[in-house]
Amino acid sequence: MMTKEDVTAMILSAKKQAGMTWEDIADKIGMSPVWTHSAAMGMNAFPPEKAALMVTTMGLPQEAESVLAESPTKIWEQAVPTDPCIYRFYEIVGVYGPTLKALIQEKFGDGIMSAIDFDMSVTRVENPKGDRVKVEMSGKYLGYNSW
Amino acid sequence: MMTKEDVTAMILSAKKQAGMTWEDIADKIGMSPVWTHSAAMGMNAFPPEKAALMVTTMGLPQEAESVLAESPTKIWEQAVPTDPCIYRFYEIVGVYGPTLKALIQEKFGDGIMSAIDFDMSVTRVENPKGDRVKVEMSGKYLGYNSW
Amino acid sequence: MMTKEDVTAMILSAKKQAGMTWEDIADKIGMSPVWTHSAAMGMNAFPPEKAALMVTTMGLPQEAESVLAESPTKIWEQAVPTDPCIYRFYEIVGVYGPTLKALIQEKFGDGIMSAIDFDMSVTRVENPKGDRVKVEMSGKYLGYNSW
Amino acid sequence: MMTKEDVTAMILSAKKQAGMTWEDIADKIGMSPVWTHSAAMGMNAFPPEKAALMVTTMGLPQEAESVLAESPTKIWEQAVPTDPCIYRFYEIVGVYGPTLKALIQEKFGDGIMSAIDFDMSVTRVENPKGDRVKVEMSGKYLGYNSW
Amino acid sequence: MMTKEDVTAMILSAKKQAGMTWEDIADKIGMSPVWTHSAAMGMNAFPPEKAALMVTTMGLPQEAESVLAESPTKIWEQAVPTDPCIYRFYEIVGVYGPTLKALIQEKFGDGIMSAIDFDMSVTRVENPKGDRVKVEMSGKYLGYNSW
Amino acid sequence: MMTKEDVTAMILSAKKQAGMTWEDIADKIGMSPVWTHSAAMGMNAFPPEKAALMVTTMGLPQEAESVLAESPTKIWEQAVPTDPCIYRFYEIVGVYGPTLKALIQEKFGDGIMSAIDFDMSVTRVENPKGDRVKVEMSGKYLGYNSW
Amino acid sequence: MMTKEDVTAMILSAKKQAGMTWEDIADKIGMSPVWTHSAAMGMNAFPPEKAALMVTTMGLPQEAESVLAESPTKIWEQAVPTDPCIYRFYEIVGVYGPTLKALIQEKFGDGIMSAIDFDMSVTRVENPKGDRVKVEMSGKYLGYNSW
Amino acid sequence: MMTKEDVTAMILSAKKQAGMTWEDIADKIGMSPVWTHSAAMGMNAFPPEKAALMVTTMGLPQEAESVLAESPTKIWEQAVPTDPCIYRFYEIVGVYGPTLKALIQEKFGDGIMSAIDFDMSVTRVENPKGDRVKVEMSGKYLGYNSW
Amino acid sequence: MMTKEDVTAMILSAKKQAGMTWEDIADKIGMSPVWTHSAAMGMNAFPPEKAALMVTTMGLPQEAESVLAESPTKIWEQAVPTDPCIYRFYEIVGVYGPTLKALIQEKFGDGIMSAIDFDMSVTRVENPKGDRVKVEMSGKYLGYNSW
Amino acid sequence: MMTKEDVTAMILSAKKQAGMTWEDIADKIGMSPVWTHSAAMGMNAFPPEKAALMVTTMGLPQEAESVLAESPTKIWEQAVPTDPCIYRFYEIVGVYGPTLKALIQEKFGDGIMSAIDFDMSVTRVENPKGDRVKVEMSGKYLGYNSW
Repeated sequence: MMTKEDVTAMILSAKKQAGMTWEDIADKIGMSPVWTHSAAMGMNAFPPEKAALMVTTMGLPQEAESVLAESPTKIWEQAVPTDPCIYRFYEIVGVYGPTLKALIQEKFGDGIMSAIDFDMSVTRVENPKGDRVKVEMSGKYLGYNSW
Repeated sequence: MMTKEDVTAMILSAKKQAGMTWEDIADKIGMSPVWTHSAAMGMNAFPPEKAALMVTTMGLPQEAESVLAESPTKIWEQAVPTDPCIYRFYEIVGVYGPTLKALIQEKFGDGIMSAIDFDMSVTRVENPKGDRVKVEMSGKYLGYNSW
Repeated sequence: MMTKEDVTAMILSAKKQAGMTWEDIADKIGMSPVWTHSAAMGMNAFPPEKAALMVTTMGLPQEAESVLAESPTKIWEQAVPTDPCIYRFYEIVGVYGPTLKALIQEKFGDGIMSAIDFDMSVTRVENPKGDRVKVEMSGKYLGYNSW
Repeated sequence: MMTKEDVTAMILSAKKQAGMTWEDIADKIGMSPVWTHSAAMGMNAFPPEKAALMVTTMGLPQEAESVLAESPTKIWEQAVPTDPCIYRFYEIVGVYGPTLKALIQEKFGDGIMSAIDFDMSVTRVENPKGDRVKVEMSGKYLGYNSW
Repeated sequence: MMTKEDVTAMILSAKKQAGMTWEDIADKIGMSPVWTHSAAMGMNAFPPEKAALMVTTMGLPQEAESVLAESPTKIWEQAVPTDPCIYRFYEIVGVYGPTLKALIQEKFGDGIMSAIDFDMSVTRVENPKGDRVKVEMSGKYLGYNSW
Repeated sequence: MMTKEDVTAMILSAKKQAGMTWEDIADKIGMSPVWTHSAAMGMNAFPPEKAALMVTTMGLPQEAESVLAESPTKIWEQAVPTDPCIYRFYEIVGVYGPTLKALIQEKFGDGIMSAIDFDMSVTRVENPKGDRVKVEMSGKYLGYNSW
Repeated sequence: MMTKEDVTAMILSAKKQAGMTWEDIADKIGMSPVWTHSAAMGMNAFPPEKAALMVTTMGLPQEAESVLAESPTKIWEQAVPTDPCIYRFYEIVGVYGPTLKALIQEKFGDGIMSAIDFDMSVTRVENPKGDRVKVEMSGKYLGYNSW
Repeated sequence: MMTKEDVTAMILSAKKQAGMTWEDIADKIGMSPVWTHSAAMGMNAFPPEKAALMVTTMGLPQEAESVLAESPTKIWEQAVPTDPCIYRFYEIVGVYGPTLKALIQEKFGDGIMSAIDFDMSVTRVENPKGDRVKVEMSGKYLGYNSW
Repeated sequence: MMTKEDVTAMILSAKKQAGMTWEDIADKIGMSPVWTHSAAMGMNAFPPEKAALMVTTMGLPQEAESVLAESPTKIWEQAVPTDPCIYRFYEIVGVYGPTLKALIQEKFGDGIMSAIDFDMSVTRVENPKGDRVKVEMSGKYLGYNSW
Repeated sequence: MMTKEDVTAMILSAKKQAGMTWEDIADKIGMSPVWTHSAAMGMNAFPPEKAALMVTTMGLPQEAESVLAESPTKIWEQAVPTDPCIYRFYEIVGVYGPTLKALIQEKFGDGIMSAIDFDMSVTRVENPKGDRVKVEMSGKYLGYNSW
């Protein structure tokens, strides 16, 4: 059986050959770049029509369509990531986690920001002192139930 | 010697008595709520004039001023945070970390988003399906050196 | 400042002296036993009117009221619990976790059961071969967003 | 020798080709969906007659029958699961573990809920505010021996 | 409130002063030495009448009686014990664990030996080549449920 | 070179085909079932004449004889075992480890039970309330040296 | 697709056959030995013209050029390195980490030395009591932002 | 007995009151700032005459002299440091550890850089693009023995 | 009750005041320095007559005598020690552990060196290239039982 | 390319076929058994002439000569070894580590025993109460630098 790993490898290979960026691919299937990359890596499931579009866009074999639409099991192996680019985000959670919690409670009450009903974007912001990476996340507020 | 933990306890107590929010305190000292909370928790150093303002705003003893201005040692004890509100951000780094890395490289080249020359905000976005938490981060892009 | 730990200790002491069960306390404040115990342990926040009721029911000092209503930081120190009664639930998650995931996806699609918009009960079911513990959990289904 | 992993792969492949759900398979062999999935994943042993039924239902090779009936060694590799759907159950054990223990003791005495003489179901409960996942577990109460 | 730790300290002190062995204490309360030590350490709950006997035998304050009867939370802090005497038992589980499992399955079917409905003894066996420690455990066989 | 893993696989396959139990094999080579299983799993070395008997009993290739007689390196990968049948023994060490130590010291002095000069058996004990697993271990007492 | 691991293996093989040192290779491509080794190991990305030079210098297949220029994911598997030569550097960070932090703050203010805008060299310093290894690191100072 | 922790606290307090930098203190006792800070933190032992100088310079009680001269036990509690300033050095060891090893072997043979016969300095290097932190380490080369 | 930690602190204090070395103390009680230090640290039990000698030698209170004679629980908190002097021994076990095992098996058969019936010494060996630390360990060979 | 693992496998196979002991091999190449085994396992580098001797002695292919002479990367995967024979040495470091440190400091000053300029032997010592394993280690004393 074809696995999500197999399809990810095919996508990466096709992307390199075609010289496309993730932004290009995202545009072709009408989704955002963050979500598109994540789903292509096997960390999100493609809705059926997007799976079909992905197969045509990247020239994948037909069997890949159902694989792209399967629910993934999200596994990461490093509890503390070592890659410096990813570690910096881990560090931000370590340093500012209690702050995010305190401000969410101040603005909403006792609850959390959903990581499921969630979206995110990455943009480049020009700046004379050096361009900046801007990351925007938005998740539904979920208040704790009392019963 | 007075420690940062001592001063944090005094701030929390004064804040409760005064019925102030972090937003109120941040306004009073002319800084953002995220930074203000984080520095009050002892995770960032107050610039001298902000330390002085903090002392008057919260009615802290004079000795607190120099303590607020000291460089903190940033320690968190849970490599994987258990509080659900903080864990969701950890989970986002686990699931989307490779995506953030891929898009930063696509837009900037081989490098990272700084977690030092960095700022962040939390806002409440009204939404008929349930209000949303919006988190915006911005950090300077730092490209790897080759030498 | 009075902490959640202080109030928990007061509740346990008052409960012992009064010879009350968690079920009794829950009845008095009009909440379920699971939620009541959890909130009394400092793992959930009492809504204001329940905090007030708790103070009268257990004869706590007035200051406890606001402490009971504060948002808790949920911390557990053993990633793998050692107490046999708690470990068995950990074991169930280890053995049946992938099964719970597969069936939720089969019945709902790609998503999770919320642990925030969530409730739970524990009941005793008589059985000639030995009475049984019945645990019922219910959480809102949250489908992953694609964007 | 054919292993449980081999048979699991065959079942998943046959299930996909046949377009069956776990509920369909469970019905065919007269067992519950939770148990059927778990046993098919190699986490439980099929009683001989169920192993035989499974072989016919899924069109497996004859050798699979004895493999399905073997006692499994239950191994999970992530002490803290990363998949969000499974993590939420881990989180429930972390947050409510002491509560489950306290209420079991209140209702039964000093003991545990068995995870061996145990059953579980997952159902979808319709709800105007969003359908809910209902998980019901039942395990025999086992009281500690004193001797 | 008096805790189990407090009572354990009182028992150890009284035992030393009285020059009693665990065997002596066990005899006095009519229980086995293994169970008596374990319960005195706060790892098992005394049935009410044994708690009363323990209080008289060791000359404990009256309040200790209800503390001895409370259900303990069983916590050990070293996942791998360092004390050589305890480590050897850990090593036996590491080396012979799969063997114990295989033989239990051969003799009983798919299931486990209960660690709850369980008893254990330690005896000294004379031997010309050096006396031997004999440990006998017995636990109820619990077969896995299929449902 | 043939490894212990290779020989273990051959033994398991031959055992299945011959429909033998571990007890049968142990009888054939004149050793106990616990030791026989453990050595067959590669966790103990066969004395030369037992290795020869094992080769004839199970119909193994000649090369296996010297492999069975080699000293094994005893490795287990899970510091805390997840299989419920093995975990229960780990739990017993966690709960009763300090008790075993205290009673060994009471009966023998400051020392340990050897896990090297050691033997163990597993038997089924009939019991109207449910049959019981009986595990007996015996190891030489080793007293600490002072020098 | 050719991976960074593949290219690293080719470089090591070509280096051995040609009898070159890392210093020789670094000279040929006009970079420092530290950076050259690190990039050849797949821990840094070659700028395009250096990738081209590397391909000619080491006689690599053409496809290697684009692989050398890709952004690496920096992964190390041992949180605490075991090799004695690498461990000593880990030990230096453990022993002198707080000192490095204190002196950077004394000389610059609250901030860090960048590990991204960074360079390093290793030299041999002759010394009658035994030659010494000299390691020089230089990284841009980055001051914490307050906002 | 006065401990190294006690003396460190006295030094920090005296340093703050006197408004001295580590460089000032180092000058006064004729040692380098890196070594002085490290020894003051209790991570190195003061030679007797330096201990005496330290007592006079910082106005410490006489008993501190012998404490400063004691051999320390070097303990750090975070295997992976969380403070960003210290983490960056850990990251450098993770990324460049194998490179340091390869170049030391190329220049010296099979061996290591000593972390005991070792010295280090931190300097500020002016730079129009942003000043840089320069860290220089030097340790004696130690070649592996063969015997 | 006086604990082993209390007595260790008294010994260290008395030793400092008296200006004695471990060798001096060992001589006074007629034991080796390694054993004496270890027992004084609470890692070994003093035989009764040695406990009495220790009390007179160091001028300890009478109650210390029985405490010194108690069986210790041997606990170390760092699975991997950080102090460089202790780490080097850990490193030797990591690098040469399989070698020690292979040679013990070659010389004795399948078994181990006892760490219980064990003794050790540390001596200084003069050497023109730098004096050397000599550590000698001797433990009884224990052969694995087969049964 | 041939790796150290490949050569180790060839040596083990040749050793078995030739019926040689490590002592025999060590004699043939004029080195000690401890060092010879360790280097054959790939944990030490053969000096060129010893590598040549090893190739002739064991009948290895010519390419093995340069592989034996390469600097190894010393990796062990179990922070706490499970094999009982190796674990006992780990236990000795845990129990006696602080003692080794204290006596080295008493005899030499503040420093360590080198694990690099180091040698070790294993011998069998006859003893009527059971033969003993004698392990002798010697490493150069290295005193901490102050600067």
